[in-house]
Amino acid sequence: MTLREIPVSLGERSYPILIGEGLLAQCPQLVELARGRQLAIVTNDTVAALHEAPLRRQLDDVAATLITIALPDGESHKDWPTLNRIYDALLGHRFDRGCLLVALGGGVIGDMAGFAAATYQRGVDFVQVPTTLLAQVDSSVGGKTAINHPLGKNMIGAFHQPRLVVADVGTLRTLPRRELSAGLAEMIKHGAIADPGYLAALERDMPALLRCEAAPMAAAIARSCEIKAEVVAADEREAGRRAILNFGHTFGHAIEAGMGFGNWLHGEAVGTGMLMAAELSRRLSLLDEAACARLHAAVAAAGLPLRAPGWPAERWLELMSVDKKAEQGTPKFVLLDGLGGTVVRRVPEPLLVETFAACAGPGGPTDREAGPHAGPAGG
Amino acid sequence: MTLREIPVSLGERSYPILIGEGLLAQCPQLVELARGRQLAIVTNDTVAALHEAPLRRQLDDVAATLITIALPDGESHKDWPTLNRIYDALLGHRFDRGCLLVALGGGVIGDMAGFAAATYQRGVDFVQVPTTLLAQVDSSVGGKTAINHPLGKNMIGAFHQPRLVVADVGTLRTLPRRELSAGLAEMIKHGAIADPGYLAALERDMPALLRCEAAPMAAAIARSCEIKAEVVAADEREAGRRAILNFGHTFGHAIEAGMGFGNWLHGEAVGTGMLMAAELSRRLSLLDEAACARLHAAVAAAGLPLRAPGWPAERWLELMSVDKKAEQGTPKFVLLDGLGGTVVRRVPEPLLVETFAACAGPGGPTDREAGPHAGPAGG
Repeated sequence: MTLREIPVSLGERSYPILIGEGLLAQCPQLVELARGRQLAIVTNDTVAALHEAPLRRQLDDVAATLITIALPDGESHKDWPTLNRIYDALLGHRFDRGCLLVALGGGVIGDMAGFAAATYQRGVDFVQVPTTLLAQVDSSVGGKTAINHPLGKNMIGAFHQPRLVVADVGTLRTLPRRELSAGLAEMIKHGAIADPGYLAALERDMPALLRCEAAPMAAAIARSCEIKAEVVAADEREAGRRAILNFGHTFGHAIEAGMGFGNWLHGEAVGTGMLMAAELSRRLSLLDEAACARLHAAVAAAGLPLRAPGWPAERWLELMSVDKKAEQGTPKFVLLDGLGGTVVRRVPEPLLVETFAACAGPGGPTDREAGPHAGPAGG
Repeated sequence: MTLREIPVSLGERSYPILIGEGLLAQCPQLVELARGRQLAIVTNDTVAALHEAPLRRQLDDVAATLITIALPDGESHKDWPTLNRIYDALLGHRFDRGCLLVALGGGVIGDMAGFAAATYQRGVDFVQVPTTLLAQVDSSVGGKTAINHPLGKNMIGAFHQPRLVVADVGTLRTLPRRELSAGLAEMIKHGAIADPGYLAALERDMPALLRCEAAPMAAAIARSCEIKAEVVAADEREAGRRAILNFGHTFGHAIEAGMGFGNWLHGEAVGTGMLMAAELSRRLSLLDEAACARLHAAVAAAGLPLRAPGWPAERWLELMSVDKKAEQGTPKFVLLDGLGGTVVRRVPEPLLVETFAACAGPGGPTDREAGPHAGPAGG
């Protein structure tokens, strides 16, 4: 299959996203970037066992030094002590400012390796090699890096653009089904906020995507990256337009935090959060019933949870007031102004309370294989 | 006395440095920046007792919230646990991305508050209110922020420009004599690398500067800031020209590290380091004997130590190989190409070894009041 290349245009910080099959084993652009440098592959134990060997093989000969820093797996390790293991290894091997970090893994690894790159000796180069669908379409594009703080997720971080993103669709076949669905949630989001035609393509190709077929998967990832890259290029540091990427995230973050981070995957919470944001948009007469139903069907087809936790309104409001997109405690919401359009605004509290109630219900993420809902959505 | 304003030109990250007497108590530009925002004064216990009250008084009415985060005093606390106290306080008070941090203190406070601002929620605004001479002429200008790692000083950090620097020369009268001298070392450096006329002014005004007379002190600080701002504007992220600011620092960092951080002040080590770099320049026929002697006299007049530790050459080389300006282990040196001119290059090891020997001798920093050497230098 063909290699796809999506440019991210950020002036002197511009970089390409490469999407294709087999890039872990062969990627000339990565080899060129790595040539003669001190190189550290930052990964976790799980991903290292699955995907490190081909990457090491292609980099071993060209790097001046090549070390692997394997961190423990999981969001619970996205913290300072684990980040510090990266600094320890880099300093222990006397890596200088000319070194290159290669983040091999999902969003947690990308965020941590990226933040280490942002802050090691005040900033060194890094490459994202995302191995989850969520990371390929979302977290590895846009330069957001961070670790968690006990009082909030991603509260300590930096904007630091990678030099290159290498998305090998082959890695997705080793993903648990829930993680695949979580990635699809962000892709549905890209369609919903920016491109109804892409949303239709996702609806059409959903069975093939759930089977990780290379050609439709690479096409969809490329379109998601294009949409995200366009938004990021217009607003690198999230001063305005970039906020639309947070569609579904204010509710979603509340679900993640309230359920305990890790119990719902980020993408799962965003999937349900999008349905809540769509419902809120409908109550504000910004979105019609049919569009709501179509989004609901797409989220269902992707195998994502559909119902929000049945918390009291006070609990929701409390959870949302610490969201980092809030200004002085009052949350703003990204709403759909028709499919493909967005508007960001504050919302009267009673309308929020109605939305919590309308969207609550039994359910939540499950580990079952995609069942009857895995077919194409009706919309 | 007049308020001096030095612009630092960095495109959309440009900011002014204000220099004058009494700015802690009255600074309209700071008040405007603070109006209506969540405000945190980050300081240490020592500085808070001396200087916090007037600053709080002028900000209390205009800020939406005003908290003080007082850290323990000293370079030994420039580490992650102490930095984390800033994050704890900001998150505990639900500070959002629109908040403003005010760094009130010396270089350690500026570096830590600046790094907290660089990384809190991926970057918030901050103001430098430097209360030491070293911070007023050096560390608060240029956007370098960092904390230390057990394996190296300033190894974890970011470039993050302040919105404003407020240098109140009145704060310098509470400084210990050694810290005043340490600041003078960086000012002598600015003269040596960029402006022999300024070096002559420092030589002439040294007694007045050691007495902290407001007018000559403000004039000298302004000229130092101009020189540093010009260099930083040409090379914000230290890719090239900015390296000249490291004159004396490769030797100086080795002295600091080898003597144990905190035993020599940074400026003291830079003072001796400059004499070593000048001696090395002389051995390379870049600098004549008279210029060397003039620099020596200026460093002596500022009350700084003149002789380097008498370590074996291996110890020096080992200490310098971890310097972050080194590339893959080989240190580069900033050398004087005549007074006011610089050249950056690698140097044959035997010449380095000769320099270590030529500059070694008894002595080191002392706490005595400035004695006979405090008079004007002969040059």
